[in-house]
Amino acid sequence: MPGAPVKALLFDVFGTCVDWRSSIIRAGEAFGRAHGLGAVEWAKFADGWRARYQPQMETVRRGQRAWTKLDVLHRESLDAVLREFDLGGIPTRDLDEFNLVWHRLDPWPDVVDGLLRLKTRYIIAPNSNGNVALLLDMAKRAAIPWDTILGAEITRAYKPMPEAYLRNVDILGLIPPEVMMVAAHNADLVAAEGCGLRTGFVARPLEYGPGQTTDLTPEHAFDVVASDFADLARQMGC
Amino acid sequence: MPGAPVKALLFDVFGTCVDWRSSIIRAGEAFGRAHGLGAVEWAKFADGWRARYQPQMETVRRGQRAWTKLDVLHRESLDAVLREFDLGGIPTRDLDEFNLVWHRLDPWPDVVDGLLRLKTRYIIAPNSNGNVALLLDMAKRAAIPWDTILGAEITRAYKPMPEAYLRNVDILGLIPPEVMMVAAHNADLVAAEGCGLRTGFVARPLEYGPGQTTDLTPEHAFDVVASDFADLARQMGC
Repeated sequence: MPGAPVKALLFDVFGTCVDWRSSIIRAGEAFGRAHGLGAVEWAKFADGWRARYQPQMETVRRGQRAWTKLDVLHRESLDAVLREFDLGGIPTRDLDEFNLVWHRLDPWPDVVDGLLRLKTRYIIAPNSNGNVALLLDMAKRAAIPWDTILGAEITRAYKPMPEAYLRNVDILGLIPPEVMMVAAHNADLVAAEGCGLRTGFVARPLEYGPGQTTDLTPEHAFDVVASDFADLARQMGC
Repeated sequence: MPGAPVKALLFDVFGTCVDWRSSIIRAGEAFGRAHGLGAVEWAKFADGWRARYQPQMETVRRGQRAWTKLDVLHRESLDAVLREFDLGGIPTRDLDEFNLVWHRLDPWPDVVDGLLRLKTRYIIAPNSNGNVALLLDMAKRAAIPWDTILGAEITRAYKPMPEAYLRNVDILGLIPPEVMMVAAHNADLVAAEGCGLRTGFVARPLEYGPGQTTDLTPEHAFDVVASDFADLARQMGC
């Protein structure tokens, strides 16, 4: 890549670093057994919970409500999806705990090793819409070796708002072309590129399960296109 | 300790984790040789630079100026102390670079090992008045294993303002007694205790050189008093 050398890599997390769908399905199955919920299609439940993610954040982006961290949005969405699945009578305390499943998502198998390699040469940090406690708990549990946690709770802006990229760049004391956004989602990278950041695409064709139809390939001329985090590390000279 | 279990430890950095004075003296000596500055008392220079730290932050705390990160305050103080020592004619670019000596301070010898032990059981993060880039550069250079970087730039409040403690606690998703502030400075811990945090005192009797007269002992009933970070880790069950 010509121009300023890249000094920091920011990573999307849900889908890019962690397999949220399989994690939620597994946790849901255990939750269902523990609460005797009977037959629940947990894959559909996971998809339904996730489907409420963008509309919920959009109310914050549009200023329809004050800044609200993702843990709270997830908790509200959980109530809604439980109603949709006609699941009731579960104690609030148990639902509060189940909501923290988002703190316990498993990384894709290539992530931790790839990040350890990238960390030797670059600052590595999440730039996620997840709140700090969520990302910290996830990192501690799965040994994800972030140098620091950045993202929406720090910038007070949900991606893809420009502030969600540019405030992180400012906090790092860098200029946009010194920072690369890495994501499995074309829209995230297009927004980052619009702010002057470098971009790295890593396809995650199973993020939405076996029938995934979106984000299977890079749809723009991103700076780096990698098959996984090991390939990304190699291409970044690590 | 009775009550809520401690889940996160926040650390003061300048003086508590790193030996800023010796680091500045060494860097000053090298800078003086490179620029042919002749005989400069670098210990006094270091003390003079540091002496401007609290008054500079106070202008931000009082709202006399907008939020300003510590790198900028350090740079202004460097100009002032250079005038005081009658040192002129140094190119701005070289001074900008010398200002980053605060990003390259050496930890006390017990810090990295102690933090690695504490990290196995607790979230560990700096709660420093230093800005994020300063703390990140320092951590990358010296292998300080923070889980994330917190502090004044994240909270937009310089210690000992209550927000400088309580906003970090909120970001961690915890309540004040679940968080312990660790510092070599009585005033920092008294402020943290006033916000409901637990407190850990680690004496650093050489922070201000061989003639230090302050903060030699804990002057209040802190939750933990440790001789160094190894002792702190032992007392915290690590």
